[in-house]
Amino acid sequence: MSWPLSQLADYVDGELVGDGQCQINGVATITNAGSGDLTFLANDRYRRYLAGTRASAVIVSPNDRRRCPTACIVTPNPYLAFARIASLLHPLPRHSGGIHPLAFVDPNSAVSESAWVGPFAVVQAGARIGDRCEIGSHCIIGEQSELGSDCRLIGNVTICDRCSLGDHVILHPGVVIGSDGFGMANENGKWIKVPQIGRVVIGSDVEIGANTTVDRGALDDTVIEDGVKLDNQIQVAHNVRIGAHTVIAACTGISGSTDIGQRCIIGGGVGTAGHLEIADDVHITGMTMVTKSIREAGVYSSGMPVSTNREWRKNMARLHQLENIVQRIKRLEDRVDQLKKDS
Amino acid sequence: MSWPLSQLADYVDGELVGDGQCQINGVATITNAGSGDLTFLANDRYRRYLAGTRASAVIVSPNDRRRCPTACIVTPNPYLAFARIASLLHPLPRHSGGIHPLAFVDPNSAVSESAWVGPFAVVQAGARIGDRCEIGSHCIIGEQSELGSDCRLIGNVTICDRCSLGDHVILHPGVVIGSDGFGMANENGKWIKVPQIGRVVIGSDVEIGANTTVDRGALDDTVIEDGVKLDNQIQVAHNVRIGAHTVIAACTGISGSTDIGQRCIIGGGVGTAGHLEIADDVHITGMTMVTKSIREAGVYSSGMPVSTNREWRKNMARLHQLENIVQRIKRLEDRVDQLKKDS
Amino acid sequence: MSWPLSQLADYVDGELVGDGQCQINGVATITNAGSGDLTFLANDRYRRYLAGTRASAVIVSPNDRRRCPTACIVTPNPYLAFARIASLLHPLPRHSGGIHPLAFVDPNSAVSESAWVGPFAVVQAGARIGDRCEIGSHCIIGEQSELGSDCRLIGNVTICDRCSLGDHVILHPGVVIGSDGFGMANENGKWIKVPQIGRVVIGSDVEIGANTTVDRGALDDTVIEDGVKLDNQIQVAHNVRIGAHTVIAACTGISGSTDIGQRCIIGGGVGTAGHLEIADDVHITGMTMVTKSIREAGVYSSGMPVSTNREWRKNMARLHQLENIVQRIKRLEDRVDQLKKDS
Repeated sequence: MSWPLSQLADYVDGELVGDGQCQINGVATITNAGSGDLTFLANDRYRRYLAGTRASAVIVSPNDRRRCPTACIVTPNPYLAFARIASLLHPLPRHSGGIHPLAFVDPNSAVSESAWVGPFAVVQAGARIGDRCEIGSHCIIGEQSELGSDCRLIGNVTICDRCSLGDHVILHPGVVIGSDGFGMANENGKWIKVPQIGRVVIGSDVEIGANTTVDRGALDDTVIEDGVKLDNQIQVAHNVRIGAHTVIAACTGISGSTDIGQRCIIGGGVGTAGHLEIADDVHITGMTMVTKSIREAGVYSSGMPVSTNREWRKNMARLHQLENIVQRIKRLEDRVDQLKKDS
Repeated sequence: MSWPLSQLADYVDGELVGDGQCQINGVATITNAGSGDLTFLANDRYRRYLAGTRASAVIVSPNDRRRCPTACIVTPNPYLAFARIASLLHPLPRHSGGIHPLAFVDPNSAVSESAWVGPFAVVQAGARIGDRCEIGSHCIIGEQSELGSDCRLIGNVTICDRCSLGDHVILHPGVVIGSDGFGMANENGKWIKVPQIGRVVIGSDVEIGANTTVDRGALDDTVIEDGVKLDNQIQVAHNVRIGAHTVIAACTGISGSTDIGQRCIIGGGVGTAGHLEIADDVHITGMTMVTKSIREAGVYSSGMPVSTNREWRKNMARLHQLENIVQRIKRLEDRVDQLKKDS
Repeated sequence: MSWPLSQLADYVDGELVGDGQCQINGVATITNAGSGDLTFLANDRYRRYLAGTRASAVIVSPNDRRRCPTACIVTPNPYLAFARIASLLHPLPRHSGGIHPLAFVDPNSAVSESAWVGPFAVVQAGARIGDRCEIGSHCIIGEQSELGSDCRLIGNVTICDRCSLGDHVILHPGVVIGSDGFGMANENGKWIKVPQIGRVVIGSDVEIGANTTVDRGALDDTVIEDGVKLDNQIQVAHNVRIGAHTVIAACTGISGSTDIGQRCIIGGGVGTAGHLEIADDVHITGMTMVTKSIREAGVYSSGMPVSTNREWRKNMARLHQLENIVQRIKRLEDRVDQLKKDS
């Protein structure tokens, strides 16, 4: 199916420049687009490819309209406009409702008639699944867990007992929601399990990436608010709260009882100590070691950037020379004092 | 069901203070507890909530008995007493034995009559499953693998061939036991797989968190001793040994052939180089980079704590100024020598 | 089954020293080998065990032939010879072809007659599975995905729609291929999903470890070239390219659009920022924070090695003293200038 460019410009409230009758039937990157493709320019490092693009049209910001060699849609946020149009041109395949004959759905659960449940999925007793949900192959929906409407569990997702999801939640393969938190009491050197009886409560419009784990609360709940986006391989420990519209990149670990504000951006491979507070609008760069609460919005970092192995070894040695350096300075100061006195 | 407080105090050998007939029917946090709830105070940061708690009773240490506004159970280790009582008040739902009609159990396996096997679980040839084990949905028990008694595999757990588990082992969803270790030999720039023919041998009372992976040994076995507790998203490489009652927090990676002692506490996001030895009773703080063996008990650390991005950039620049600083000091020393000589 | 040592020496083109009729029926480590076992010496730290080994024969490099107390096979690369012989002595059990009656194979897919599909595996519409592939229990092969010949998916592997694998690819349990990349556009503080319509394209002779995730490209593909070996718990983001014969150790995260060269060796727990280029033959040590492109072959590092907690606290304090140190040096220089002038 193809769309005239003018209609796509209207769809995103953008300004059309050039031939509005130009037919668009797909989206592509600025370097690989060809005839019939729409592309976009949103990252400075790709500007050098604009002049040579073979796309039929480009979504650009006002600054780039003059540089664009083809028809274009001008809009202040080209990446957003692109996201909208790409979703229009490449709609998700939708399953019609129904329970696959190879699924196991407990008779004491409640699955909406418009929901789809795939082969080898398990819906346990007391679970409730809302309208138009898609529960892919091998998913497990634990006892008493509830899903709102329009949730998509791609496949192989495990939701343990008594968890709750809002509407429009997307869970990718390997996600585990509601596993026990890591709670233990020590008795003479042995560790005794502390029962984890809280839940995981997830808001609406949340997306969680492949193999990410979210532990249930120990007593209170682990909470992920509306609009949160979590990348792959993230660990969210028990009793964490993640504020609305916060995004976290892959491989990050959030320790127990950490309270993260709204609209934060947390890079990949970050780790936080437990029981911390992170304010709204905090940006933490990748691989940062968060050892204390962050109480003001802003950008925060730690970690040592890569260098050659030779340079790195030198830096590590220098760090250990600092004690010696301070001693030498102290001695110099004494000697200069003495010279001054003597002069 | 509710319990008189006096009975709970007896159950944990604690001292009862106040009304022993007070009825307890649940546990909750000190801030959220209400009438009928028992709570506890074990972490200094929550002491400020003690005076205002609405719990019916609190488990406290002797130091806090005077501050407690309600009935209490006094015991030297409140968190341990809480763990015991919470387990009593919130017992796990147990499946009665039996094989779900949608499970696949190879006729050449041996499953105890008191064990439960859930829908879509797979028990392969030669596997043995002990008394009262619970094998949740979608678990795979590989050929010749053996589970002791009372193991609980929550669901979606994969145990590869020829692994061995003791009694009372808990494995959370996404756990993989016995995947091949990362062993390769190089031949003219290409990597040739080295067969991984060892096993994983896990002791009793071990708990392993969601999406944690434990590779099988190359030739000898990977060994996890009794009472070890592993959090989520941990990687245990081939031929590692983890000593009894050691705990490891989430996202940590243990490289091949590392030998970790007993009763260690290893924080989250830690990484170890391979072929290291870590002594008994070593405590490693989160995100530490363990580049060498640790041969004495104690606390060990590395990594740079978070600061503002601005401060971090300054620190990184300073590190590189050290060479220059040493040169300047040397020059000063020479000049002061000269001045001294001249004076 | 047992093999005469002479035949094994021939098999790896090694030089036989000692009794070629010696019968070998297994492989073992140098410390645990007994009569009938073949072992190898490839790592200097195990040389001290050579004199006392009870193995029937040892594979050694020319340097060690004199030290070897038993029969031996001499070869320049003992570990490679060992890998070959271990594969010969411990061949993988192979399934004969066929679809398990409890698998779900869509009638519109194409599964080779010599392939095996295990219980509760799902093969979706349009998928193609080549000769002698083994699709273990609980694997999902998404719509239109294609596997070459001789691939082994151990079990519980998820391949999403439209992905492509070459020949002889091994995927361990928990692997997810083709999950959506982490792409979002911001609209007034909320995040809008950017459709991920690229694929994952994997070459031949690739092995991917347990619980590793590889996201599909946003528009173009994520590409893993021939002979790449990925360990467990690795995250490969959208539009990454990993060049042929590169190996990456566990827990590493590769951010989006990073382009990694051929024959690289990347340690465990490494993180890379996005949109970087890493040249061929780069070696990055474990836990390095790769913040910029690496354009030349060589060894690269970062991170602070472990020390005692006490020493670490001192180092962190020193780093913050640097500003003060520079001030003190500057003052000293001024005073010495003044003394010089006055003298």
